[in-house]
Amino acid sequence: MRVAWRRWLPDLPVLQWGREYRRDTLVSDLVAALIVTLMLIPQSLAYAMLAGLAPEVGLYASVAPLLLYALFGTSRVLAVGPVAVVSLMTAAVVGEHAAAGTPAAGAVAITLAFLSGLILLLMGVLRLGFLANFLSHPVISGFISASGLLIAASQLRSLMGVSAQGDNFFSLLAALLAQVPNTHGLTVAVGAGALAFLFWVRRGLKPLLLRLGLRARTADLLAKAGPIGAIAVTTGLAWAFDWSARGLKIVGAVPAGLPPFTLPVWDAALWRELAVPALLISAVGFVESVSVGQTLAARRRQRVEPDQELVALGAANLSAAVTGGLPVTGGFARSVVNFDAGAQTPAAGVFTAAGILLASLLLTPALYHLPQATLAATIVVAVLSLVDFSLLRKTWNYSRADFLAVVVTLLTTLGAGVEAGLVAGVGVSLALYLHRTSRPHIAEVGLVPGTEHFRNRLRHPVALSPRLLGLRVDESLYFANCRVLEDRINDAVASRPELAHVVLLCSAINDIDASALESLEAIDERLRAAGVALHLSEVKGPVMDRLQRTALLARLSGRVYLSHYQAVCDLAPETLAAAASATIAAAQS
Amino acid sequence: MRVAWRRWLPDLPVLQWGREYRRDTLVSDLVAALIVTLMLIPQSLAYAMLAGLAPEVGLYASVAPLLLYALFGTSRVLAVGPVAVVSLMTAAVVGEHAAAGTPAAGAVAITLAFLSGLILLLMGVLRLGFLANFLSHPVISGFISASGLLIAASQLRSLMGVSAQGDNFFSLLAALLAQVPNTHGLTVAVGAGALAFLFWVRRGLKPLLLRLGLRARTADLLAKAGPIGAIAVTTGLAWAFDWSARGLKIVGAVPAGLPPFTLPVWDAALWRELAVPALLISAVGFVESVSVGQTLAARRRQRVEPDQELVALGAANLSAAVTGGLPVTGGFARSVVNFDAGAQTPAAGVFTAAGILLASLLLTPALYHLPQATLAATIVVAVLSLVDFSLLRKTWNYSRADFLAVVVTLLTTLGAGVEAGLVAGVGVSLALYLHRTSRPHIAEVGLVPGTEHFRNRLRHPVALSPRLLGLRVDESLYFANCRVLEDRINDAVASRPELAHVVLLCSAINDIDASALESLEAIDERLRAAGVALHLSEVKGPVMDRLQRTALLARLSGRVYLSHYQAVCDLAPETLAAAASATIAAAQS
Repeated sequence: MRVAWRRWLPDLPVLQWGREYRRDTLVSDLVAALIVTLMLIPQSLAYAMLAGLAPEVGLYASVAPLLLYALFGTSRVLAVGPVAVVSLMTAAVVGEHAAAGTPAAGAVAITLAFLSGLILLLMGVLRLGFLANFLSHPVISGFISASGLLIAASQLRSLMGVSAQGDNFFSLLAALLAQVPNTHGLTVAVGAGALAFLFWVRRGLKPLLLRLGLRARTADLLAKAGPIGAIAVTTGLAWAFDWSARGLKIVGAVPAGLPPFTLPVWDAALWRELAVPALLISAVGFVESVSVGQTLAARRRQRVEPDQELVALGAANLSAAVTGGLPVTGGFARSVVNFDAGAQTPAAGVFTAAGILLASLLLTPALYHLPQATLAATIVVAVLSLVDFSLLRKTWNYSRADFLAVVVTLLTTLGAGVEAGLVAGVGVSLALYLHRTSRPHIAEVGLVPGTEHFRNRLRHPVALSPRLLGLRVDESLYFANCRVLEDRINDAVASRPELAHVVLLCSAINDIDASALESLEAIDERLRAAGVALHLSEVKGPVMDRLQRTALLARLSGRVYLSHYQAVCDLAPETLAAAASATIAAAQS
Repeated sequence: MRVAWRRWLPDLPVLQWGREYRRDTLVSDLVAALIVTLMLIPQSLAYAMLAGLAPEVGLYASVAPLLLYALFGTSRVLAVGPVAVVSLMTAAVVGEHAAAGTPAAGAVAITLAFLSGLILLLMGVLRLGFLANFLSHPVISGFISASGLLIAASQLRSLMGVSAQGDNFFSLLAALLAQVPNTHGLTVAVGAGALAFLFWVRRGLKPLLLRLGLRARTADLLAKAGPIGAIAVTTGLAWAFDWSARGLKIVGAVPAGLPPFTLPVWDAALWRELAVPALLISAVGFVESVSVGQTLAARRRQRVEPDQELVALGAANLSAAVTGGLPVTGGFARSVVNFDAGAQTPAAGVFTAAGILLASLLLTPALYHLPQATLAATIVVAVLSLVDFSLLRKTWNYSRADFLAVVVTLLTTLGAGVEAGLVAGVGVSLALYLHRTSRPHIAEVGLVPGTEHFRNRLRHPVALSPRLLGLRVDESLYFANCRVLEDRINDAVASRPELAHVVLLCSAINDIDASALESLEAIDERLRAAGVALHLSEVKGPVMDRLQRTALLARLSGRVYLSHYQAVCDLAPETLAAAASATIAAAQS
């Protein structure tokens, strides 16, 4: 019986690290958990409100998902919970179905987390993690920068103490500008103060602590917990001077207690509407999480298994759905803090969950007077680090196609929302890739004098024969580009009456699909009709394996040569003489 | 002034062949035109009726388009007019908007030809002919076979003398089966007789004529004109015995006269509905036409210019629209007949147009008693040659991905119609291509003893060093596959504690996009964090040109080597010793 159980029990990562758990690992994990907990409390509240939900939802979403990830995840340091971009995407969906902060909004977020969990789990079980690879770096980068701008703009409302609506980034900015005369002075003072403090914490606190004699690592970690200071001070002031009576918006009553048991809304129409957003949220969350996990794992020569990560994130989201949460994923900043604070195993995540649980049981009354402007300032400081336009310059220099993909994603996200931005970005980058491969680089090659090498006649002085055309195709041959080769060869044959041999140099051809096979057959037939023979040279092993299962090689008017040099020696030896006389001329001059 | 005119006058093909036109060319062209005219008269009537239009529409569509193609086209022998597959696609659209044979149906066909002409012209001017390359051979082949089956099934109605409707191939077959008891005896007799005669013409007429002493070419061409015999005989019988009074459906009154001047329906809503069908009709027509043109041009070392062909087919369709026609393209069978009959220049097309014009002026009264069953038999014989399931076996052997594309296209076309079939086929073949390139073949390579060559360690006995990992990626690196490389390297580093160097052998990498560049940077950073250096070897010129514009090469922890052998000599010389001892051991054994 035990053997049978073993076979069906999944190979859980926890079984590996749990067996090696020791006392010093425990201490490291506890310290890391304490620091991450201090960082997560304000972030959880803030990202829940960003998503249009009650603040306590963020706390609930930072308990069960951490436990489930610790059980199933392969990264030892990834910290899972509500993160900025996923919360923004959640906000877009929730806003379409319910008013912000209402129970209806919570029900939509729970259903979204449930669907997202199902999708991730299914992708993991079916090993479909590679699908996320179709989100290219330029698309993700443009999307995340645009999301950062969108989030920052949405927080300006809370920082200015006004209400302004906009369908997109530009109309929201215009609405905010129109509201400048209505700005609430006290709110701006609190928000600006918090912002200034938080920026100083980022820049100036660590050097100060170092000068005060603290060790570098301690100073670093204390600086990371800085936002807690802004929250404590502004909450204290708001309570002492009763600023809410003077119009400052505060968080208000946050119910104390354990995360509730909840279920998604079982409504087929709603599920259909949420399916695409859930898929996009899953993809973005997965890509962000895996790239953080891999970067941190590599530093300790550990590894992250993408398909198992899908299962872990799926389980985390399902657990968020049944405990009143919202869609979650692995966050960048918190995972780095966890790593730097010395977390050794996912047990640190379990201790963090316990910390958040304690906070949601005991700490919520203290959050009553927390100004919303302070939370907005926390978010603005966090998301501005996401906005990075350096890729625009970098891709402009490197690849215009990738530049176009960034710009389309960025502008569509800002102008038409997060879902349209992602879809447009993926569409454009796929179209550009197909366009590129559909117009392959085809070089006419000649013999470099004094060598057995063949190079592009346009780049190098080479020896050629009018009787032989040597073509190197720098791309696998498939349906979208095989007719380009047909055209190229047709043109060459029509313009060269003395041509007798065409040799395709296949060193860069990694695959030939059925369409390209038919094109090669058509090329062969047309050449034969025109009295020209078609030869192949330097065909790769795997490509040759498949060609040998076809009739092409048997019917081919020419031969298959191991090297292009052999082909030229055999078919157009006058090329060698031309190359030799070029070498002699070069030696004599 | 003359120079300025020259500059703006398009470089029309007619200016070239018109200048060289001689008396013997004229004779060849006239003979070819006569034979093609005899073949086109019944085909034009039949394909117009297949499209759900009045028979004379087919004649109209075989006049002006031939003239326009002669003016703009680059193929010297392509014969343009209504063809089976395009007429079937037209039928699907016309049937959605009007009853068969009505003036409303004619108006829809005219509008469709107009839109199709605009799309082709625009694609030609913008040089977008490459877009048609995304119709892969398996998709076109599956689509054309399915179209042949659909057309044959639709003609069974006329051959059985019953009316039966079906949403798709399968329901149409079921409806026809249910109608078997209502079969009209005389119609079946005429249809079966015509079918038998036409099949005999294909197989038996040419050998008979040869035995009678005719020259091979004459016998061949007479056999091609065979359908005229079936038409003459059955029309004569139907007239002599007044079979229409006994329930045989005949063509009836075909108005005599010149093609009328018509205009498309200017209705934005209709245009929106016709836009996608017109695009698909344009793409299928263009691909069919260009592949026929190229095959025939190659036999005489002439060439066909795809973008100019788009302009010529666009003009042909626009002319069909203003002369009461339907969408047209270059037909396979008629172009081959034209070529075999000795047509030298597009003037043969002009003479054919004149022949059809004469027929529509003078011959239409003679078509009154032509049985519809005879036309149906002509169509069935013509389209059954389109049905070719050999590609199923061929692709099954060669490539399962292409096999899947054929099957999806075939079944979707049969089960859900021509548009759905094409869209599904293109979608599936693109998805399969992306899937293939997103999971590239990555080989770990080692030194083949006694050589400087590096091959896959799984396929060849090679020398390796535990300190160096040599990886050859057999695919260009782009966003969809770069994370596969990241995973592969992460895994290798995690599982090999003694690893010090990773060398990427880049001989098969034709391109590195911005995502792959970031992946290489990430790989380099992670390897550096793990104390491993990343090197590149055998990077191609164009790829190196672009890499040199980036920061990757400057920051790279390792070096770029010209050859992989140099890299191994430099980084892991113990590999050479291992290879040498393997060579010695082999020599001693």
